[in-house]
Amino acid sequence: MAFQIPRGTQDILPGQVEKWQYIEKIARDICERYNYHEIRTPIFEHTELFLRGVGDTTDIVQKEMYTFEDKGGRSLTLRPEGTAPVVRSFVEHKMYGDPNQPVKLYYIGPMFRYERPQAGRFRQFVQFGVEALGSNDPAMDAEVIALAMELYQTLGLKQLKLVINSLGDAESRKAHRQALIDHFQSRIHELCEDCQVRLEKNPLRILDCKKDRDHELMATAPSILDYLNEESRQYFEKVKSYLTKLGIPFEVDARLVRGLDYYNHTTFEIMSDAEGFGAITTLCGGGRYNGLVQEIGGPETPGIGFALSIERLLAALAAEGIALPVREGIDCYVVAVGEKAKGESVLLVNQLRKAGMIADKDYQDRKVKGQLKAADRLNAKFVAILGDDELAKNVINIKEMSTGEQTEVPLPSLIDFLKERLA
Amino acid sequence: MAFQIPRGTQDILPGQVEKWQYIEKIARDICERYNYHEIRTPIFEHTELFLRGVGDTTDIVQKEMYTFEDKGGRSLTLRPEGTAPVVRSFVEHKMYGDPNQPVKLYYIGPMFRYERPQAGRFRQFVQFGVEALGSNDPAMDAEVIALAMELYQTLGLKQLKLVINSLGDAESRKAHRQALIDHFQSRIHELCEDCQVRLEKNPLRILDCKKDRDHELMATAPSILDYLNEESRQYFEKVKSYLTKLGIPFEVDARLVRGLDYYNHTTFEIMSDAEGFGAITTLCGGGRYNGLVQEIGGPETPGIGFALSIERLLAALAAEGIALPVREGIDCYVVAVGEKAKGESVLLVNQLRKAGMIADKDYQDRKVKGQLKAADRLNAKFVAILGDDELAKNVINIKEMSTGEQTEVPLPSLIDFLKERLA
Repeated sequence: MAFQIPRGTQDILPGQVEKWQYIEKIARDICERYNYHEIRTPIFEHTELFLRGVGDTTDIVQKEMYTFEDKGGRSLTLRPEGTAPVVRSFVEHKMYGDPNQPVKLYYIGPMFRYERPQAGRFRQFVQFGVEALGSNDPAMDAEVIALAMELYQTLGLKQLKLVINSLGDAESRKAHRQALIDHFQSRIHELCEDCQVRLEKNPLRILDCKKDRDHELMATAPSILDYLNEESRQYFEKVKSYLTKLGIPFEVDARLVRGLDYYNHTTFEIMSDAEGFGAITTLCGGGRYNGLVQEIGGPETPGIGFALSIERLLAALAAEGIALPVREGIDCYVVAVGEKAKGESVLLVNQLRKAGMIADKDYQDRKVKGQLKAADRLNAKFVAILGDDELAKNVINIKEMSTGEQTEVPLPSLIDFLKERLA
Repeated sequence: MAFQIPRGTQDILPGQVEKWQYIEKIARDICERYNYHEIRTPIFEHTELFLRGVGDTTDIVQKEMYTFEDKGGRSLTLRPEGTAPVVRSFVEHKMYGDPNQPVKLYYIGPMFRYERPQAGRFRQFVQFGVEALGSNDPAMDAEVIALAMELYQTLGLKQLKLVINSLGDAESRKAHRQALIDHFQSRIHELCEDCQVRLEKNPLRILDCKKDRDHELMATAPSILDYLNEESRQYFEKVKSYLTKLGIPFEVDARLVRGLDYYNHTTFEIMSDAEGFGAITTLCGGGRYNGLVQEIGGPETPGIGFALSIERLLAALAAEGIALPVREGIDCYVVAVGEKAKGESVLLVNQLRKAGMIADKDYQDRKVKGQLKAADRLNAKFVAILGDDELAKNVINIKEMSTGEQTEVPLPSLIDFLKERLA
């Protein structure tokens, strides 16, 4: 009986995994320079956290969660996103009491959504995200956006579009909400059933509706930007001026909204313009959520963050034809001829590795020719050939594969010889 | 309402996470030098895989799995260990057909077992493991053991004990099995109920029983080493001679057994001798499983691997009083005095980061004194102070925190100045 991987998930195999390692390394390096620290929360949380933190009217919560009971009868859910767990941890560990404010965190790890699998969309996918908690400075918003942009740019993406918007503060949102109700109410029956519910619960989310996107009421809907009060307007102006100062081009799109009540002020998305990237062009989404920490049981604390999927990032790199640097091959392959040399090669390979080199040997009892072929397939820079004759003379033959040059060196000098050539 | 982390799991927070990052980096470096490649399998698999690959008579499968149905009615299980998923992937992707044999893989990631939480034991824990598939060379066994030992030694652990054993091939195991039945049968009623079942199903597992450990029948039970046939004996001798050649001390313990049928030949454990490490002294367990690939639906393929828990590794490091190197602080904190300087500091910090430095600034609207305190708490090597006066003169004041030395440098020279001092 052969087993298959669960539907909608993928194995990341050698040959591909190096790209993931590379992206993660770049993301970690950038986070370090921006003074963000990694946090690792569990793969699952109490289900209630996501009902509260993601919102029980969202598609994620209503349709896409992996929820189950453990043997103790607790309802647990594989995390569908990273923000609610980070905020849970921030509250549980009372990080709001740390004198170092803001608390700047990042995470990289798998998330889970039971969605219809399609190209570039998986049920288990990896998100990289940051959360900066504790600051209400517009410079913080610019920093978070700059960090995301730096990741994409460092990896070589050129066809990027940053779109920003402001949802304003609670007062601004309230005024806008009423304007939306006034706008849609008389003709709400022309929109889909979901939108009819949204009108009562959360009219802002009507603007997010995929079904009614092209209805004429959408284009004429009141813009949040016309309802920002003075404070909110000034906040948004500062964010924009910082982005300009940092040389980060952006577009303002008043339709970029988030339905949940604890989102406010800045929202942003980074999209790919690349041809052939397909319908899903959003690479990264983020925004300010000054009400979320309180919603999850902590004191009133401002926050802002973003999340992006590595899978989608890889798709964008492919669409722009960008190849990431990957491992080129091994440093040295030790070929052993004869029983005694074979035993000695175990030690030699070990010594090369301890000296910092990528080294390997045969474990298949191959003949010399087979070992040389294996060295070739592994793209070895050097092949060290040890026969019982050489062993008796305490020497070894080294072949540099790029030039074909062969050198006989004393066995004790092997490491120094290779280190010098590899440097 | 405040939320709590699920029982038996932990958040890995800044201040601790750096140790994990460090250990993982060392593990990855070693794997690279040994020419092992990373593989990432999903967090969950079809439940049946673990029934087959881990064994349906084991505690793991019978008591400890997180099993649930997804919305499509599939029975899925959060992986309790890493070998079965890697072998599933090896078979599914037909890696046995790759000309590069053996296939040498490693993984680092969370595993899940519903156990009673106790000190150092978690329901979600992180395992690092390697699997070398396709070779039947005793040198392979020595390499895998050497790799595990190198990790512990590189991290500085000294009080290590390597214990090895051989279960022999199928013929040897069969002879030993009969000897065990003959030994225990007449007095099996003196042992626990589980052991009575084991006598029929798998008498080797009686030797693993924690309840009957001290019964006199245990000490006198027939040793597998007396039942190894010639081929198995020679195989074990070679493994031992390679370990000796590599300078890795070991003890042979015939009681080190694995109950499942597809385990054979070499088994090993690495333990900590450190005082105060507590009852759980096993850091790492591994062995050969020449029957597993076939069990999971692939062609007959030899394999060997190990798994170790990072949590337990950290406990061993603590028991030996070993501190891992962690990040020391940031390179530069930019203090801004006045509105104009504040705006400029956003750009300055961004430029320092782009130049490769760890830089930060205030986002809390702190006064100068508060900003200097924040720089101190972040352990900044340099503080760059920018006032509106300095800005007008296009200069900036830099204070080196270790010496107290202050220097006024032209603003455009800031990066070069810091780079030179930090080098």
